Amino acid sequence: MNRKFYCDCELDYQVMSDSTFIFNIAVAKTENQTIVTENLELSPELPYEESLEPIVNNRYLKVNVPPGQFKLSYRSQVDVTYVDQDPNQIPETLPSDLPVEILKYIYPSRYCESDRLLRLAQSEFSHLQPGYSRVTAICNWIYDHVTYLSGSTNSQTSAFNTVTERTGVCRDFAHLAIALCRALNIPARFAAGYAYNLVPPDFHAYFEAYLGGRWYLFDATRLVPLEGLIRIGTGRDAADVSFATIFGAIELTKMQLLVNSLDEEKPEATTDAISPA
Amino acid sequence: MNRKFYCDCELDYQVMSDSTFIFNIAVAKTENQTIVTENLELSPELPYEESLEPIVNNRYLKVNVPPGQFKLSYRSQVDVTYVDQDPNQIPETLPSDLPVEILKYIYPSRYCESDRLLRLAQSEFSHLQPGYSRVTAICNWIYDHVTYLSGSTNSQTSAFNTVTERTGVCRDFAHLAIALCRALNIPARFAAGYAYNLVPPDFHAYFEAYLGGRWYLFDATRLVPLEGLIRIGTGRDAADVSFATIFGAIELTKMQLLVNSLDEEKPEATTDAISPA
Amino acid sequence: MNRKFYCDCELDYQVMSDSTFIFNIAVAKTENQTIVTENLELSPELPYEESLEPIVNNRYLKVNVPPGQFKLSYRSQVDVTYVDQDPNQIPETLPSDLPVEILKYIYPSRYCESDRLLRLAQSEFSHLQPGYSRVTAICNWIYDHVTYLSGSTNSQTSAFNTVTERTGVCRDFAHLAIALCRALNIPARFAAGYAYNLVPPDFHAYFEAYLGGRWYLFDATRLVPLEGLIRIGTGRDAADVSFATIFGAIELTKMQLLVNSLDEEKPEATTDAISPA
Amino acid sequence: MNRKFYCDCELDYQVMSDSTFIFNIAVAKTENQTIVTENLELSPELPYEESLEPIVNNRYLKVNVPPGQFKLSYRSQVDVTYVDQDPNQIPETLPSDLPVEILKYIYPSRYCESDRLLRLAQSEFSHLQPGYSRVTAICNWIYDHVTYLSGSTNSQTSAFNTVTERTGVCRDFAHLAIALCRALNIPARFAAGYAYNLVPPDFHAYFEAYLGGRWYLFDATRLVPLEGLIRIGTGRDAADVSFATIFGAIELTKMQLLVNSLDEEKPEATTDAISPA
Repeated sequence: MNRKFYCDCELDYQVMSDSTFIFNIAVAKTENQTIVTENLELSPELPYEESLEPIVNNRYLKVNVPPGQFKLSYRSQVDVTYVDQDPNQIPETLPSDLPVEILKYIYPSRYCESDRLLRLAQSEFSHLQPGYSRVTAICNWIYDHVTYLSGSTNSQTSAFNTVTERTGVCRDFAHLAIALCRALNIPARFAAGYAYNLVPPDFHAYFEAYLGGRWYLFDATRLVPLEGLIRIGTGRDAADVSFATIFGAIELTKMQLLVNSLDEEKPEATTDAISPA
Repeated sequence: MNRKFYCDCELDYQVMSDSTFIFNIAVAKTENQTIVTENLELSPELPYEESLEPIVNNRYLKVNVPPGQFKLSYRSQVDVTYVDQDPNQIPETLPSDLPVEILKYIYPSRYCESDRLLRLAQSEFSHLQPGYSRVTAICNWIYDHVTYLSGSTNSQTSAFNTVTERTGVCRDFAHLAIALCRALNIPARFAAGYAYNLVPPDFHAYFEAYLGGRWYLFDATRLVPLEGLIRIGTGRDAADVSFATIFGAIELTKMQLLVNSLDEEKPEATTDAISPA
Repeated sequence: MNRKFYCDCELDYQVMSDSTFIFNIAVAKTENQTIVTENLELSPELPYEESLEPIVNNRYLKVNVPPGQFKLSYRSQVDVTYVDQDPNQIPETLPSDLPVEILKYIYPSRYCESDRLLRLAQSEFSHLQPGYSRVTAICNWIYDHVTYLSGSTNSQTSAFNTVTERTGVCRDFAHLAIALCRALNIPARFAAGYAYNLVPPDFHAYFEAYLGGRWYLFDATRLVPLEGLIRIGTGRDAADVSFATIFGAIELTKMQLLVNSLDEEKPEATTDAISPA
Repeated sequence: MNRKFYCDCELDYQVMSDSTFIFNIAVAKTENQTIVTENLELSPELPYEESLEPIVNNRYLKVNVPPGQFKLSYRSQVDVTYVDQDPNQIPETLPSDLPVEILKYIYPSRYCESDRLLRLAQSEFSHLQPGYSRVTAICNWIYDHVTYLSGSTNSQTSAFNTVTERTGVCRDFAHLAIALCRALNIPARFAAGYAYNLVPPDFHAYFEAYLGGRWYLFDATRLVPLEGLIRIGTGRDAADVSFATIFGAIELTKMQLLVNSLDEEKPEATTDAISPA
């Protein structure tokens, strides 16, 4: 299924000291995401440097900003291809068949301490049929046991906290799901993106699991249709894909996002398995 | 300075079920490490698959092993080039000058929660002159405050624990040093290797900090000479460079390492800055 | 129901420096526990001081011990009265009816971080009928989700760890149960005692919950009959009732316990509610 | 030194459901604190029940409150005797000389995990002369290493967090000091009270250490004079002395405190050791 989106992001800052911003807000150019048009405006019009993270293709924009007001405005039209598949046909990949470059996605990371969730994951999910449906079961478990509550967590909250504290936002839902997948030797990675129909509009966090030789989209929050997810970046957890890494004293004074579907038929919830590649 | 080493590693396992081993025990082939001779023996003689992690060049050996005894024997002769430099001439790299592929080494990871050590790192080290000597100060602080004690920690121990519990082994020393570096925006990564003169012989963990545009070797344990470190692998922390990732039921029954210096002049402690590249 | 027990405890230590021992190994003298005979032998025959903790009646034996071998031998015959009740008739006590001296047993303590388990306790147990059966449900949940495994935890393990790591020993089972009770405003306290039929013989940890105006015995491990529990001490958690608090350098070289039932009819598992008072 | 204070506290609540409040806001009646006049007003004029915690004399006021506005107003005039002593004459109490009822104040508690700070406490403070001055050194260390910052912590923050995160409010300063004292076998307890000259006016948290057979006042925040501390309650940590334990749905809409010194000579900072008894 091909879909067209328009993404718009405006970020305003009050900069107190000479600062370096490394933004990760541009839509990723991947096999299944084609940028049709794209526009970046900085005010003041400062020079910036774009670079690409190898393999995962996260795009970084680095800008050195003097004190004063600073504004970034990014607009993009993007074509995204989603592959629909029958969830029942998607197996887990045996550890012996995992490509080496995928291996790191079963290791624990800062916010996904899978090594501390082994027994819990075993006791809750090891009796289930391996495959796509087992990751769905993890998402359902999180949806049933964790309450989505803005402001209930902070940037230090990790899966080990969330599994007990039972509350969080999209990044916490993703971290817990990833940690549980990894505890079962299912490679899983964090993704950040634009999301169609997210209310209120914001950057969204979800995750991808590696099954049957490719990555599939999952979102334990159930807040948006999977076919409305447009990837900005991916990494081992939120530590890798902050929308802005900032060195300096600044204040974010405005953040405004807009995601439109340019198709007649709008993205909707589905029970199909959706692969971004 | 060029140095020649002989590394020998024998691992014996009792395998209880069909298992997949992914070893990371071969000396890395890098710009400054040349394998002169190398020999790997498996008993029984099972087929194995070697693969290379992109960029950092960690070498993975994957073997599927049936139940029974299993033995790996690895021997290697390696030439290593160490670059000696005057520590006083090595600056820190400004965040605005950090290459994008280095960026991930200032982000927190599973065992190096730099995000939770910001104030401590600031209060202990921010008044110091930036540069190589500041990383040395971090190593000295750890050496002075943390006791090396075998068995005092486990595979879940992280920098946040060690900074307060004040005891650990080489991997804990490395994790804490890395976390403190990152908290000061100094990129730092974990390294595992063979180490000349380590008593008792074992795989060793140390770290590298990115200063003045290149990586430098550091070891807060002060157990071995820096010019006796032969890299096997590097990663964000110990999660990435386990010497064996194993899927299956096994028991390690023997582990024996040997590292010889093949030069007349043996490696010794130095106060020079040593770069592996 | 009245029951007679014989308890025997021998502790041998190698004492390396002048040390102070504060033992908490004598059977508590309470309304329902009557010491028939009791004998304490120390070797060497050192003077000791006995004192009583107010309200809960824990008995402390303080001994100053010089370097060398040290041996404590305690023997006691004790009559214990257990009150059997119909579990279905036992309500929870409304917070507004809790006596002030009970209040502290709903507050979090070192190993029972009830404040971090509020949502989990709510989501798992708030839909259940308040009363004795709800505490039973907590015990069942722990029994079903946590694996009893010697050596899997240490003296720093707390309920917050156990609820996720899903493994532990009797003290961990008790801590988690207490934390979950308190998270539901059910007062709960830790108890240490001799236990009939515990294999292998050891001091045992269990807990008491305050329901319908009195304390009831619970043991989520299901290892021993409730009517075989002879209390040594009680407190907010294990921090309060260590069998020995020791100041000095010592090594425990032997620990041997024996608990006999002196009745013809031996204690057995029961589904009755058992109150120790 | 005798001092006279006037304490005034007003708490306004919006009560959403039938709620039980257990207040701990009345000045404690102790050997050194005499209530001259006291007045409690509730609006609406609801019946309340006062009770006294044994030994430490915390006073609890229990009120059942229906939905609507609820206001508590407490006024008290109190005479406090402080004993001034020469800090250099105050030894630590040997563990062998500790009274049994004091013992619990060296055990770890929810927010004072002294068991996890043993090595840190040893390495920082064990070389110092035992006695009052060592507790002062602990306070100085905290004052130097931890930043007082409103809102930087929450009700779950404990000493183990604060020692690394290096920021907190008065309760965090007290928790860390208590944990460090206990790690050195110095009994220490948490205290909450009214405080003269606290800006902005609020309930204050400080701590008491047991030295030379009696309790002494300490406050690592240095925010107020020790001779301006009027005790409300004491306990093992903040879990025990919340100013209000509330069962029900409420919102605190106003909190206003006032503490006046009724003497001509106002309390000032001192380097004397001050005992409240």
